[in-house]
Amino acid sequence: MRHFLKPSDLNAEERISVLNRARELKALTTPPTEQNLRVGGLYFNPSLRTRISWEQACWRLGASCQTINAGADSWKMEMNPHAVMDQDKQENIVEAAGVLGRYFHLLGVRSFPGTESWDVERTEPTLSAMCQYAGVPIVSLEGAMHHPCQSLADELTIREHFGNPEGLPVALVWAWHPNPLPMAVPQSFALQTALAGCDLRIVRPDGYDLDPEVMDEIRATGSKVTVTNDRAEGLKGVKVAYVKSWGSMPLWGQTDAEREFRSGLRDWQFDRNTWNLTDEAKVMHCLPVRRNVVLSGEMLESEHSLVFDEAENRLWAQAALIEHIAKREGLI
Amino acid sequence: MRHFLKPSDLNAEERISVLNRARELKALTTPPTEQNLRVGGLYFNPSLRTRISWEQACWRLGASCQTINAGADSWKMEMNPHAVMDQDKQENIVEAAGVLGRYFHLLGVRSFPGTESWDVERTEPTLSAMCQYAGVPIVSLEGAMHHPCQSLADELTIREHFGNPEGLPVALVWAWHPNPLPMAVPQSFALQTALAGCDLRIVRPDGYDLDPEVMDEIRATGSKVTVTNDRAEGLKGVKVAYVKSWGSMPLWGQTDAEREFRSGLRDWQFDRNTWNLTDEAKVMHCLPVRRNVVLSGEMLESEHSLVFDEAENRLWAQAALIEHIAKREGLI
Amino acid sequence: MRHFLKPSDLNAEERISVLNRARELKALTTPPTEQNLRVGGLYFNPSLRTRISWEQACWRLGASCQTINAGADSWKMEMNPHAVMDQDKQENIVEAAGVLGRYFHLLGVRSFPGTESWDVERTEPTLSAMCQYAGVPIVSLEGAMHHPCQSLADELTIREHFGNPEGLPVALVWAWHPNPLPMAVPQSFALQTALAGCDLRIVRPDGYDLDPEVMDEIRATGSKVTVTNDRAEGLKGVKVAYVKSWGSMPLWGQTDAEREFRSGLRDWQFDRNTWNLTDEAKVMHCLPVRRNVVLSGEMLESEHSLVFDEAENRLWAQAALIEHIAKREGLI
Repeated sequence: MRHFLKPSDLNAEERISVLNRARELKALTTPPTEQNLRVGGLYFNPSLRTRISWEQACWRLGASCQTINAGADSWKMEMNPHAVMDQDKQENIVEAAGVLGRYFHLLGVRSFPGTESWDVERTEPTLSAMCQYAGVPIVSLEGAMHHPCQSLADELTIREHFGNPEGLPVALVWAWHPNPLPMAVPQSFALQTALAGCDLRIVRPDGYDLDPEVMDEIRATGSKVTVTNDRAEGLKGVKVAYVKSWGSMPLWGQTDAEREFRSGLRDWQFDRNTWNLTDEAKVMHCLPVRRNVVLSGEMLESEHSLVFDEAENRLWAQAALIEHIAKREGLI
Repeated sequence: MRHFLKPSDLNAEERISVLNRARELKALTTPPTEQNLRVGGLYFNPSLRTRISWEQACWRLGASCQTINAGADSWKMEMNPHAVMDQDKQENIVEAAGVLGRYFHLLGVRSFPGTESWDVERTEPTLSAMCQYAGVPIVSLEGAMHHPCQSLADELTIREHFGNPEGLPVALVWAWHPNPLPMAVPQSFALQTALAGCDLRIVRPDGYDLDPEVMDEIRATGSKVTVTNDRAEGLKGVKVAYVKSWGSMPLWGQTDAEREFRSGLRDWQFDRNTWNLTDEAKVMHCLPVRRNVVLSGEMLESEHSLVFDEAENRLWAQAALIEHIAKREGLI
Repeated sequence: MRHFLKPSDLNAEERISVLNRARELKALTTPPTEQNLRVGGLYFNPSLRTRISWEQACWRLGASCQTINAGADSWKMEMNPHAVMDQDKQENIVEAAGVLGRYFHLLGVRSFPGTESWDVERTEPTLSAMCQYAGVPIVSLEGAMHHPCQSLADELTIREHFGNPEGLPVALVWAWHPNPLPMAVPQSFALQTALAGCDLRIVRPDGYDLDPEVMDEIRATGSKVTVTNDRAEGLKGVKVAYVKSWGSMPLWGQTDAEREFRSGLRDWQFDRNTWNLTDEAKVMHCLPVRRNVVLSGEMLESEHSLVFDEAENRLWAQAALIEHIAKREGLI
């Protein structure tokens, strides 16, 4: 059995097939007939787009969907299978995962990284345990390393506007934010667009590199990749600017030190002046966004913004993905 | 595009048509065939009847429905589109509304007034922003000024018991409550029954007037309206007593001063003695109700109480309303 | 109208009929056609299996289901119908129950015991009020005295593995836990297996007797029942070991005193050595379980464990139960 934890967990043929099917589904005016497919969504963190679009994607296919907010409407969960559970945790992830695997044919899981060192967080303790113990396909709804449903929707959005994106100049641009944010969205976007054959520019201040394993995988695609700390150079000629803030891996979990480190970078807001460095780029962001901090309100409201298209496309991309997995795994 | 924010947002013909359709739907034993209509409910405040009846109304029509509890299972929301979001708020209402407008064809929103001055609260900052930015019809599930789904259900309830209510003597009666409560329910009830042509009595202590704009709209209906602080006079001959507590507008947001102001009014409980002043009136309340404070347990349990009919009718009124809006706006 | 609050609320014929139907439903690959049945789930306590399986059971029948987390996504509830509600509670259970009875044809309710004396808690104040005021059939999703949906699923699980369990040697085995836990699961399991004709052993330390009323009802079944504090004697020859921790009734609500009382009983963990006292028993537990405290990880992961079967069977048992009640009460 295969899971879906990062963009490359679909091979090229599968990925294109899923993206094409997403567009077909979007164009349908009536859903397929009801199917006996039970899907869950397990959230260790807040969500808005993710929960709504995940549930709607299931319903669109005639599947059912249930949401579990871990620790809020369920029991406190112990993540260590070997723990002697005589403290306050009430359920071990081994049992929770096993039970969820009996109730659901397929399970989406959101688990942001914690404040352990990056060496620990990058191993995705929660997602890995779910994959190991649930016995059903797991779809990442954002982990420490990747947010593959987001980047699938992002590629769908790029294809809607540009057709086949091979060779398309696309930039991932770091932006200042009051807090160090997770790496999952930028890493998945970079890998997704490299897989799609884009001419990828990663534009970030020194100290904000992506995870080396992700960079290796990006380079292995054979697509052109440029990494630079010079916004003028990086944004020159780009047709898509994907704006995002993320944290510094060497300072992961050290919030105060990281804030100090980024204190001089507040001018990395993406505003009209930054946009003028591009070739009339479409502006993308996964949302939620710190308005007038990460992106200026002006750019968010401009005709160049695709942020709402991206959000809507979560629904269609995920519906196609679930259908693909359900067929692939013989669930429907 | 039109929204539904107050009772008069349906014209007379529409309102009657919706109410008649509500009764038809209630009499149906099977729902219409499934429709591809996606409805949301966004709650900034607690609910019981509202969420349940809103979801059931959607399902009754074959539509889907999703509930979002703002700030609990989603991100902290910034209400000012111009804010520089470098503090703790994670998502601006401009983006949140825009995204929800992509996921839903129609959106219910509950947003109680806050503790700003009444001059501010009466402008409905949250509902107004949703109307401005969501791009889909918004249905108020209670704002500062109105609770129009409640009063639609209330009129349905009155019609079930009295037929055409033109000329029917109906009283809105203030009651004591430990806290100053919102104005939405009493204001919508008064306007709704005036629109229906009732002989309306507003019976409240001095200092508890309804908003002048609502009073102007009530008077503009041409229906008979009496305002009095004398319960014996106001309740004489009435067939319906709608019991409700609400706050004093001049003291809005000044909880302690308001409590002091109402300290002498505790005898404004609606009990058997108060009921004896009416002409065997049906007793109504929107619920939740402070039992033995606002209404005596005896009256709540009496054969004259319609409180459960009102609650049930939320479902049928809302189903008819959603269908009406969906047809009107070309959504189905 | 009848409710379902404990295992014996179904007579023998009904119980067998429900269990057989559960297996039929489980074998179906497509659900019955949609039915106009509205079901609710009202939770005063956390849940994972219960909410998921309750909702899925409804959907499996084509019914709708809505979840209400009392006090979280609804109003604060006053349990005393005679209270003068001038404090912080916003809605009385009389009104809440009456309203829910208008929205739902059938209502599941979970209400764990509080910390009043056992004499009070055993009367099930919340479940009793719901039965009295809701006007629709109530299904207990766990009260102070019983968890009958769990034990129905447990009997289904036993029947799947052993066929007709008449005469089957079955043990309910107490286990140490850091906190005194409710009595509902062990009491329902004991009664359920006695009703099924098992040879029941209740194996627990002195001071951990079940409620006398439950014991009377168990003895009235005519099935063989043994109560012992000797694990070797009690587990000899048993084919099923149902492991569970529960509290000491005489010390109910006195958490510190109870913890002191059980401080010498930590060796009542069910591990490989305990299992060796049985006749290769299947090991059952309702979950959530304190791993390596109540049950060793080794036993939970062994081929003898049925804990996931039990959890899955909640779904099928409840679906059959709801269908049974809905037909019995003329709801479908």
